[in-house]
Amino acid sequence: MSDDQLINAGIVGGTGYAGAELLRLLSAHPRVALSAITSRQEAGQAVADVFPHLRGHIDLRFSEPSLEALADCDVVFFATPHAAAMHFVPELIEAGKRVIDLSADFRLRDPELWASWYGEPHACPELIETAVYGLPEINRAKLANAQLVACPGCYPTAIILGWLPLLEAGLAHTDGLIADAKTGVSGAGRTNKIPFLFGEMSESFKAYGVAGHRHLPEIRQILGGIVSEEVGLTFVPHLAPMIRGIHATLYARLKDTNTELQRLYEQRYADEPFVDVLPAGTTPETRMVRGANDCRIAVYRPDDTHKKGNTAVVLSVIDNLVKGASGQAVQCMNLVYGLDETLGLGAGGLVP
Amino acid sequence: MSDDQLINAGIVGGTGYAGAELLRLLSAHPRVALSAITSRQEAGQAVADVFPHLRGHIDLRFSEPSLEALADCDVVFFATPHAAAMHFVPELIEAGKRVIDLSADFRLRDPELWASWYGEPHACPELIETAVYGLPEINRAKLANAQLVACPGCYPTAIILGWLPLLEAGLAHTDGLIADAKTGVSGAGRTNKIPFLFGEMSESFKAYGVAGHRHLPEIRQILGGIVSEEVGLTFVPHLAPMIRGIHATLYARLKDTNTELQRLYEQRYADEPFVDVLPAGTTPETRMVRGANDCRIAVYRPDDTHKKGNTAVVLSVIDNLVKGASGQAVQCMNLVYGLDETLGLGAGGLVP
Amino acid sequence: MSDDQLINAGIVGGTGYAGAELLRLLSAHPRVALSAITSRQEAGQAVADVFPHLRGHIDLRFSEPSLEALADCDVVFFATPHAAAMHFVPELIEAGKRVIDLSADFRLRDPELWASWYGEPHACPELIETAVYGLPEINRAKLANAQLVACPGCYPTAIILGWLPLLEAGLAHTDGLIADAKTGVSGAGRTNKIPFLFGEMSESFKAYGVAGHRHLPEIRQILGGIVSEEVGLTFVPHLAPMIRGIHATLYARLKDTNTELQRLYEQRYADEPFVDVLPAGTTPETRMVRGANDCRIAVYRPDDTHKKGNTAVVLSVIDNLVKGASGQAVQCMNLVYGLDETLGLGAGGLVP
Amino acid sequence: MSDDQLINAGIVGGTGYAGAELLRLLSAHPRVALSAITSRQEAGQAVADVFPHLRGHIDLRFSEPSLEALADCDVVFFATPHAAAMHFVPELIEAGKRVIDLSADFRLRDPELWASWYGEPHACPELIETAVYGLPEINRAKLANAQLVACPGCYPTAIILGWLPLLEAGLAHTDGLIADAKTGVSGAGRTNKIPFLFGEMSESFKAYGVAGHRHLPEIRQILGGIVSEEVGLTFVPHLAPMIRGIHATLYARLKDTNTELQRLYEQRYADEPFVDVLPAGTTPETRMVRGANDCRIAVYRPDDTHKKGNTAVVLSVIDNLVKGASGQAVQCMNLVYGLDETLGLGAGGLVP
Repeated sequence: MSDDQLINAGIVGGTGYAGAELLRLLSAHPRVALSAITSRQEAGQAVADVFPHLRGHIDLRFSEPSLEALADCDVVFFATPHAAAMHFVPELIEAGKRVIDLSADFRLRDPELWASWYGEPHACPELIETAVYGLPEINRAKLANAQLVACPGCYPTAIILGWLPLLEAGLAHTDGLIADAKTGVSGAGRTNKIPFLFGEMSESFKAYGVAGHRHLPEIRQILGGIVSEEVGLTFVPHLAPMIRGIHATLYARLKDTNTELQRLYEQRYADEPFVDVLPAGTTPETRMVRGANDCRIAVYRPDDTHKKGNTAVVLSVIDNLVKGASGQAVQCMNLVYGLDETLGLGAGGLVP
Repeated sequence: MSDDQLINAGIVGGTGYAGAELLRLLSAHPRVALSAITSRQEAGQAVADVFPHLRGHIDLRFSEPSLEALADCDVVFFATPHAAAMHFVPELIEAGKRVIDLSADFRLRDPELWASWYGEPHACPELIETAVYGLPEINRAKLANAQLVACPGCYPTAIILGWLPLLEAGLAHTDGLIADAKTGVSGAGRTNKIPFLFGEMSESFKAYGVAGHRHLPEIRQILGGIVSEEVGLTFVPHLAPMIRGIHATLYARLKDTNTELQRLYEQRYADEPFVDVLPAGTTPETRMVRGANDCRIAVYRPDDTHKKGNTAVVLSVIDNLVKGASGQAVQCMNLVYGLDETLGLGAGGLVP
Repeated sequence: MSDDQLINAGIVGGTGYAGAELLRLLSAHPRVALSAITSRQEAGQAVADVFPHLRGHIDLRFSEPSLEALADCDVVFFATPHAAAMHFVPELIEAGKRVIDLSADFRLRDPELWASWYGEPHACPELIETAVYGLPEINRAKLANAQLVACPGCYPTAIILGWLPLLEAGLAHTDGLIADAKTGVSGAGRTNKIPFLFGEMSESFKAYGVAGHRHLPEIRQILGGIVSEEVGLTFVPHLAPMIRGIHATLYARLKDTNTELQRLYEQRYADEPFVDVLPAGTTPETRMVRGANDCRIAVYRPDDTHKKGNTAVVLSVIDNLVKGASGQAVQCMNLVYGLDETLGLGAGGLVP
Repeated sequence: MSDDQLINAGIVGGTGYAGAELLRLLSAHPRVALSAITSRQEAGQAVADVFPHLRGHIDLRFSEPSLEALADCDVVFFATPHAAAMHFVPELIEAGKRVIDLSADFRLRDPELWASWYGEPHACPELIETAVYGLPEINRAKLANAQLVACPGCYPTAIILGWLPLLEAGLAHTDGLIADAKTGVSGAGRTNKIPFLFGEMSESFKAYGVAGHRHLPEIRQILGGIVSEEVGLTFVPHLAPMIRGIHATLYARLKDTNTELQRLYEQRYADEPFVDVLPAGTTPETRMVRGANDCRIAVYRPDDTHKKGNTAVVLSVIDNLVKGASGQAVQCMNLVYGLDETLGLGAGGLVP
């Protein structure tokens, strides 16, 4: 693109938390003109009426989702629940739009697997293989000029980035991987369910989805791709009494305990603008990335006295709504259009 | 004891959170007369001035810690930081008092190990072996009439109860055990340190002590005792933005995947008044035990697709100040005196 | 009643927060046998399945609300939303049951006023005048043997107790009264509405109902009764990001600035078991009454430099679910049956 | 200034919350080069080590506070506790620097009054009268080219903006003004005091400083200036369990109830870039301004039935660290240098 041309962007399904975050990021992006936002439910409403924190910052109305509403868009972001994008994306692709899907519809390569986890057949299996998995740290080259981007889930982002250097280096046994992950509630969306009430989840902590969470096959697929074999993974997500943030604590048994993990991680991520390997001996906190597109990682090999140091412990934090959703989507957009990858994503965390 | 005789109880170091919780529990105990509470710092102050929530409920003043101050006591609880009880307990024992220590001073059997973790030599190593580890679920018989009780740490309580049935049955590989634990901040005590400020830890989540936490050797010692061999354990504690509660998520590789874990757990704890095995498929929340002496446990064997179901996942929650500290101390006292084990501990959790 | 006879109690509508709190309090009450709990929605379910924190503490099932289900009850508590009790209470009264209503149905003396605030005609206006307003601090004598008790709302309890000594003494101008009140979210009940989600109300504070809240006519009625004239009251409720607790900050212009307010308050409440006037210069915190039936009050006359000290500021805190609902209901029950008023309500606040 | 020249800015005392927020805002400001940050305590440390959330975003070290350290600066921001700036500002002014003081040192016009509230004599009373009170909404013209700016306190900002239209219009009685204000804990700074621990203030709400808060004389001074007479003000601040945000609820008796307040407010603030008058009938939430420089206001005249609508209720919210401190300081800097007032301050609130 020429240096001053604006990208016309649209958002489908902008009434949830990921949509609100996209609005915040895109409206501040120096190369984006936000030209449409759709919502069946809120069509006709001003964005600032649904999200009063945006009064004076965004002057746009929700419209009915349709090809016409998005006619001016170069790129369309989907911030819809799963099983919505797949019904609308084909006609957008055909109309020459680029699509960046934040939902789960194009993440799994195997339509059967998708169907078994989401409870209905996939609506456009033929598009799946054209989708680029939007994790820049492993797919940067493929994202350039991509037509359809399938942005990773929030858990997969934190977990894959946490294990990437270790698995790429072939240092870990790939059966018996354990990912103990904790999330703030915004990952569940703006859904009025009893368990997400303040009165139910404040001052409390719990695991959920232990028997099987929809991000499990996605994580397995990507990790399996990295090591070129099936991996054995136990994934237990937990809900922490906070709004934003994911903290993944990752356990892997090491094949080889001679490699210095700290250096391995620092080298792998030396050129990554959004992945920060913390100094040895320090630990990340989710607030360190609040509102920011950063992923911060620490790596440990604690003495378990039995087999000294044969377990690697990786701590990986992201803001689930930014690097785990909308920020990563913008990062992908930057790469799709050949822009500086960090454009519009330079802000540090909001602390305190 | 005769049925109507009161036990005179004293508390040493009653200005922290465990002390406050002891006050709450002992003042409501039908067989206890709270006769003394000591604090070097607050000596002379009314308890209700330091803890205004107890105005009208407790009419007692802090006194200087001394044998005289505790002369009337049958039993003395220590709610002090580590390395305090060991300097005072010997003379209390000699004076014929029973001692229930909530601190770390008598938990580790090996004085050298104690010294290496706490940074100073143990002051009365000869008393260590007389101490009974105060986890009723494994030491009920020994607690009867015990002179000195070493109450378990909060993390050890949640973790040991979570793994007990599995390890007793010899079903798990004892190397590579992984305990991923999360706590509310009250476990850190009433300490004015920057990281425990509301402005620092609200809306945030982090791991800490990954390289080595003082509860690690204690957990290893007890688990090792259960299986009669050294165990390999990785223990990662985390701080969650809440006041009370511990949630331990425990991972163990199974030797044998035929045993039905749900039944094993239900049978092991069938007669335990304070351990509740939840129905299969449900998950505990820390609020379910808020203010209560209960430990609630769920056990899973998730499909990790690689080696189907060879990892057992146990979820175990307690209130760190009750079953993890003061409640368990009262439970031990009941057993020491041959009272109904549940006396004064019958309340359910405070929800919401 | 004879000293060992148990009162058979039933709860109608026990699936909300006030219901859960009634369960907690009544199950620990030494003179109550909890014999029935009804809920149309949960009929057939075990209480412990709906409220897992009560597993092992309460062994009862929800039944369909009906006269049969409550046949064994001496007293029936209503923990229903408004406009439910009034349809069921008449037949219970006729059947000789005592009724303690925690809902709004019998609080307002004027059925027309009730209808205008609740949007439908009152179903049994003839019963209204038989109802005793269940604020023991002003109605103790009338509660003895009462057939129908209308428990105060949570805001009215905190506000009326805060102003009672001042207004009884005739010291304040009764126009221009200002009650700025703050509540935790449990006051809104266990309702799955978007604004009560953790993601919406954590880390935020707001006013609501400024134009008119249903507790306003109730407060006016009672205050007006105290001073025997209409009062002018501005009442602004706010939602604070916490589960429990009400903090009322009350402003009144003084007619007379010579009376020592601290002493006035201490004398008025000297014999009240559940109202605590804090020492001069200290301030109450809502956590000081968490889970307790206490109301704690502080009174100030700050220097506003213009007319020195002509504004009285009263701070009044309660736990909205205890003294503001279920605890007060139990206190009323104790009075109705001539029991010690504090029976089953002796616990101090849960701190931290 | 020319359009591309950068302003060299320094920060004195950058280790607190206001300092961290200044770092965040100034580092993203298109016309500012952050050239120095000083802290006696952290001198030599990298900013990113003290504030890990800024790793990769700010590459600067703390230096000892001194004229040399700030030699390159055009403008110096003070984010120090009170009674620090006044000792250092005179030499900076003499050296030709502009100074924007976020602390309390130059807010009060009367040095005696200052001394009586801050407990020591003012160090440079002669500078006080040269200071411009940095509330752009009343002092925009005077801020142009100002040498020394005294930024308002957080409470005064919310309260003055809330009452400004009403008082300017002469509609309210100026005795008996009542400001009931609620703040998140970051207003207290990064201070390790027991009452600000998570374990003490989470799930709790309280008033403080009822007998007299240091912002009281400041508010009185400014309000008195607006109406040209002394005002009678009762100001009660409260601490809410949240990190950021101030909610001021303001009560004033109206002289005249004919004026339409909604229109009055909308007109007064029509051209103010950072003050938003909400639509009639809606209420602001503190999260709506989280991280943003906005002040959002709603105005009501509730029916108190006695004297219908003679009390005006104004709700005013700000982020105490942004519009209440660092954001307003940057807004003032923009005005001092004749830049677009909104430069670097365009971001909307971070929601959720």
